Amino acid sequence: MLSRREFNWRLATGLAGTALASRRLLAQEAAEPPLLCQARLVNPERLWQTLGELSQFGSLPAEASAEPGTSRLGFSADDLAAHNWLMDSLRREGLEVTVDAAANIRARRAGERDDLPALWFGSHIDTVPNGGNFDGCVGTLGALEVMRSLREHGLRTQRPLELVVFSNEEGVHYGKGLFGSRALAGRLGPGELDAVDEQGVSLAEWIRRYGGDPDKIPEMTPPAGSLHAYLELHIEQGGILWERGIPIGVVEGIVGINRYRVGLEGFANHAGTTPMNQRRDALVTASKIILAVREIVTAQPGRQVGTVGAIHVEPGAPNVIPGRVEFPVELRDLSMEKIEALGARIRARAEELAAADGVSIAWEQTSSHGPALTSPRIRYEIQQAAAEMRAPTLTMASGAGHDAQSMAHLCPVGMIFVPSRDGISHSPLEYSRPEEVACGAELLYRTILRLDQHEKLT
Amino acid sequence: MLSRREFNWRLATGLAGTALASRRLLAQEAAEPPLLCQARLVNPERLWQTLGELSQFGSLPAEASAEPGTSRLGFSADDLAAHNWLMDSLRREGLEVTVDAAANIRARRAGERDDLPALWFGSHIDTVPNGGNFDGCVGTLGALEVMRSLREHGLRTQRPLELVVFSNEEGVHYGKGLFGSRALAGRLGPGELDAVDEQGVSLAEWIRRYGGDPDKIPEMTPPAGSLHAYLELHIEQGGILWERGIPIGVVEGIVGINRYRVGLEGFANHAGTTPMNQRRDALVTASKIILAVREIVTAQPGRQVGTVGAIHVEPGAPNVIPGRVEFPVELRDLSMEKIEALGARIRARAEELAAADGVSIAWEQTSSHGPALTSPRIRYEIQQAAAEMRAPTLTMASGAGHDAQSMAHLCPVGMIFVPSRDGISHSPLEYSRPEEVACGAELLYRTILRLDQHEKLT
Repeated sequence: MLSRREFNWRLATGLAGTALASRRLLAQEAAEPPLLCQARLVNPERLWQTLGELSQFGSLPAEASAEPGTSRLGFSADDLAAHNWLMDSLRREGLEVTVDAAANIRARRAGERDDLPALWFGSHIDTVPNGGNFDGCVGTLGALEVMRSLREHGLRTQRPLELVVFSNEEGVHYGKGLFGSRALAGRLGPGELDAVDEQGVSLAEWIRRYGGDPDKIPEMTPPAGSLHAYLELHIEQGGILWERGIPIGVVEGIVGINRYRVGLEGFANHAGTTPMNQRRDALVTASKIILAVREIVTAQPGRQVGTVGAIHVEPGAPNVIPGRVEFPVELRDLSMEKIEALGARIRARAEELAAADGVSIAWEQTSSHGPALTSPRIRYEIQQAAAEMRAPTLTMASGAGHDAQSMAHLCPVGMIFVPSRDGISHSPLEYSRPEEVACGAELLYRTILRLDQHEKLT
Repeated sequence: MLSRREFNWRLATGLAGTALASRRLLAQEAAEPPLLCQARLVNPERLWQTLGELSQFGSLPAEASAEPGTSRLGFSADDLAAHNWLMDSLRREGLEVTVDAAANIRARRAGERDDLPALWFGSHIDTVPNGGNFDGCVGTLGALEVMRSLREHGLRTQRPLELVVFSNEEGVHYGKGLFGSRALAGRLGPGELDAVDEQGVSLAEWIRRYGGDPDKIPEMTPPAGSLHAYLELHIEQGGILWERGIPIGVVEGIVGINRYRVGLEGFANHAGTTPMNQRRDALVTASKIILAVREIVTAQPGRQVGTVGAIHVEPGAPNVIPGRVEFPVELRDLSMEKIEALGARIRARAEELAAADGVSIAWEQTSSHGPALTSPRIRYEIQQAAAEMRAPTLTMASGAGHDAQSMAHLCPVGMIFVPSRDGISHSPLEYSRPEEVACGAELLYRTILRLDQHEKLT
């Protein structure tokens, strides 16, 4: 009998014997894209083994969940245990390991010239509830593998290297993501540190438990020009690379996001006595608008996405015509102009559809976050390094948020994606193949060596 | 300052000074259809006055609701008080007033020949929560007005007349409608009398509080042929008569109802990282099906209706593609064949749409109730009586359920509808004009006299 932890790992790695895993494996064997990249300078087995070790922290006990998965929320006991384990591993590589004010792990490797701005790289190790073992972990342990390989190869870079593991990237606990990287970049919201969780524990208290110092966060932001660059390896969390069989994504930027709230008001009436031509059914109008979102977003070329993820109907009974409906619309793209234009087009169409149905409409923008672009020079070096490895690449946007977008406020940034099987993420089924993970780590290694040579990046 | 009860009544009768009522009145003044019917044999003022008196029972106190309305739920203290008030009024007309086993009020007027099967008529006086003062009340007090007018005119029918006020027609309390009429017709479900409400009071106990006898319900059903007919006057609860300016609806039958539950399963995934062409968005498919319901139902002539009144989405977050959606589909028509054909067509289209979207679908029929048809002979007599009054009529289906559908198991039935302003019902805004109410009562009076002459109806 396998332990639950062992089982989780086997499930994630495709070894579990459950019907679920078997079905998936059977279905995918045929569709598995060929591998086009091989790692030579890093150790694939060691990296995969280390991923397995990390997966032990916060894997759900059998009684807690019907589905296996890892719940290692930022600022939790499981995450803290993983932090400690990881710091030990980093110290064993001879790195200078500290916890910064915001509870980020920092592991420094001296360069030939310690007066030069350091080259930063890393990711995070916290997960969503019932999440997987690759989101964040691949980038963090890929970075650890780079440090290990550099030591094995006896290489010393010109610049200092700074491996960073950001705290509470997912932000499930306390509700706001990218915590550690935003703290570092001086981008926390007012009062954010005063937040208190369901157990009555403040965020500041959790930071102290990790060895951080919330009082020093305001002074932690590095001065301009003191970072050479930030590089992050991450799983794609979408299915583009997997579907096209390309092992490497070179990230152009992290998309901007606009969210809107749409409210419709028709007239709630008796579903038996109200003829079809006398209805003002808010759900019928909502359905037209939901289809219009999809139609307008897909009408032009590009990788923009638009989603209606929820809907609320009142009064919500089978025998009453829906009188009120409310739903969110979310739009993402690398270009804010495109997002704004799509938003305006969807709004205009929604207003037309509502007017034609005799339904009143309220349209409200609830949030807007601009995109974060990566450095063209870093993208070029990633591509050159991939070419050395004969690894095909795809230049692509990141649809999800990453710590790199906070770091973009401090220095030029670059991101490397590896494929996610079926594009699944934030799920126990999240998976990237060992060879793909290793390929990403080797590309990180090679890109670090290239960027180390640059005098100044832009 | 008006009392809340006075205010409710004024609101319902269009006299209230609130912004809401004013807006509605202003908007409607122009659209008010002309009256085409005048009552001569009943007393319109007395009937309207009596409706006002009944509305005092269960009208909501100001602190209980932002919106005024009447909450006189079946089997409640307010409804019981109204029952007692109504029995007193019936006794004052010299009727023989009793409460039957199921807590229905029965008020008998002797005929010339008491050996003949009695002619029954009536309705109910209970309401939904925050309801109006016309649903059920118009028919019940119209029947009382018939009894009063017969006495005033010194008329004696050949047959006995039996005015009936059915208990708990709405069925909000204890969850099942048409209680009193189903009890009379021997159509209660197993264990229905054992139901216990939130206060721990059983339905049987409530029946006793009204003076009924739950133990005698099984023997209360009248033998076949012992009822001559059942006639019910009611508000339409839809907007067909109001919109067309026709004062009288002659009901062909009460529609049958099929309900289905549709479940869709796509794949919940990250709304940022999943390209539009890799999505299996269950809400997009649901939107297509909701529009298909409307399109298929309206594609053929007839008065069939189809409604999707609620929808549930999982996981239901703005940044997650909907993975699972569930919603009910309700179809109503006088013809069960038509309902079944529409259901099959919608199901086939839904399955096509789901398959095209790569979404799996589960389709389940959750309930099916056949229609109850009225007697053609009674319809003819209603039309003849309306012609005497020069009142235009419209032959129409009842989209809502009524006690007449239970009575159809015992004898030939007929129903007379009067207009509902804007088709609004189950709302404090429910309204029929005094002249329309009186016209309906007079038609009931005249139809009773005509049916009294028939030897046997079919």
